[in-house]
Amino acid sequence: MKLVRYLDAQNTPQLGVHQGTDVYPVQGYTNVQELMHKEFSALQQLPLGSAVPLASVRLLAPIQPERNIICVGWNYLKHYTESIGKREGQEQDLPEQPTLFTKATTSLAHPGQTLPLHSSLTQRLDWEVELAVIIGKAGRDITEQEALNYVFGYTIANDISARDLQRAHGGQWFKGKSLDGTCPLGPFILTADELPNPQALDIACLLNGEVMQASNTERQIFSVAKVIAEVSAGMTLLPGDIILTGTPDGIGNARTPPIFIKAGDVIECRIQGLGALINDFQDQPAATFSS
Amino acid sequence: MKLVRYLDAQNTPQLGVHQGTDVYPVQGYTNVQELMHKEFSALQQLPLGSAVPLASVRLLAPIQPERNIICVGWNYLKHYTESIGKREGQEQDLPEQPTLFTKATTSLAHPGQTLPLHSSLTQRLDWEVELAVIIGKAGRDITEQEALNYVFGYTIANDISARDLQRAHGGQWFKGKSLDGTCPLGPFILTADELPNPQALDIACLLNGEVMQASNTERQIFSVAKVIAEVSAGMTLLPGDIILTGTPDGIGNARTPPIFIKAGDVIECRIQGLGALINDFQDQPAATFSS
Repeated sequence: MKLVRYLDAQNTPQLGVHQGTDVYPVQGYTNVQELMHKEFSALQQLPLGSAVPLASVRLLAPIQPERNIICVGWNYLKHYTESIGKREGQEQDLPEQPTLFTKATTSLAHPGQTLPLHSSLTQRLDWEVELAVIIGKAGRDITEQEALNYVFGYTIANDISARDLQRAHGGQWFKGKSLDGTCPLGPFILTADELPNPQALDIACLLNGEVMQASNTERQIFSVAKVIAEVSAGMTLLPGDIILTGTPDGIGNARTPPIFIKAGDVIECRIQGLGALINDFQDQPAATFSS
Repeated sequence: MKLVRYLDAQNTPQLGVHQGTDVYPVQGYTNVQELMHKEFSALQQLPLGSAVPLASVRLLAPIQPERNIICVGWNYLKHYTESIGKREGQEQDLPEQPTLFTKATTSLAHPGQTLPLHSSLTQRLDWEVELAVIIGKAGRDITEQEALNYVFGYTIANDISARDLQRAHGGQWFKGKSLDGTCPLGPFILTADELPNPQALDIACLLNGEVMQASNTERQIFSVAKVIAEVSAGMTLLPGDIILTGTPDGIGNARTPPIFIKAGDVIECRIQGLGALINDFQDQPAATFSS
């Protein structure tokens, strides 16, 4: 099942099921978290309203996280190696445990939303397509074997990163990863029952139609299951938590010469089976639509 | 005004005003966030119930953050310098902008709570007394001059840190800072109207009665106002956000030989005007009381 959030004709956020070219509003529920106690089979029985053409609605990020989005760094070997010597003195040996940091909830952005360049703060805004995992139930010390049972679904994220801020704050990445509007998410959540193996998905990022990143999640150093086990060791995961599982090689900062996002750019993130997440950028976009 | 949360005689979380040796339950409000839209003068008019002896109630962390707790690293020069050569190859020049990272909401713990050592995950659990700032209203690009107007109040935090995990995850500190129960907070929030200058507070941490850290917030490299300005640049702060403003020198990891927290230890964090936050540690404490 493909779950979306969108603004309905009254500009009210609405939960929906996406089928074909239509969206069916879910009656009686307003966010994905409310569905997480249900079995996937029960989701098939959700009361749905009349079909609305997908093309006629404005999509929102399919889930609003309550707490910070958890992110994995350096989870594709070629992405780790592409930046060797380009980390401005902040080199690290390839870690034996996943590199974990967070993005603020206020970085969340919507599919199709025009995103800000923050040019007064950064001149080095970069893209990172990532497979996003939506946690469906609480757990701690989750084993790798059990981990996928804790996944509610998957979607696409663009972990937009201000490379200069990422380095400036003592080498801790939170600020460079957390500017407003730097975590577009969507377009839909594919529930986990329809994606039993998340380690065989083509993943790509296009800048103005040109492929910048192209890989497959089979190349993740730490699988989705391993990441959940590592993150949850001694640290309780909650329903609605979002984990971004790392980006493949092809970021702008590692190119010669480097490429950074500029006004008018359009970035499309694609993951096999999860659709496409498309955003454009302006220095000062018109007032963002809220969720 | 000193605001507390506590478990009442029915074991229900209750908001209260702490005066002298008593607590007065606040009628009609259950958490601090609900008070944040009020002027400080209006807080004096809150409907209060009958006094309860403070000693008779079990205090809770005075606020439950919705999103991750924001933390500043290396904000006292002597704390930065005490660890030079002790960062296991992860050295950093003293940053010109604050070092920012987060702790998971699930790390929150209560005054007086027995905290877990997580000995299966870490052998290097360490203390860090910190002045915690509670943000009272939303803002972005807040100027240093305006910053203190965004503060609702102050309390004490112990930013308990698993030094081995802090280094293991690619040098990003989130995981080593986010184990369950590693962010005790309290005992009360002193509202900002009663603390116009947060840069002149004695701050100390005692391990089993022996002073380990002793400094003054006047020695912060980045003042509370400067931290708020830096954090909020391009990143919206929300009411209820908590910012830990760094720890002075005297951590266990920088000592020769190093000292780490062990079963039976009692740690007391003190800040002038904010009381004392006391926790003891056990390898496997009895089921924690929830909030």
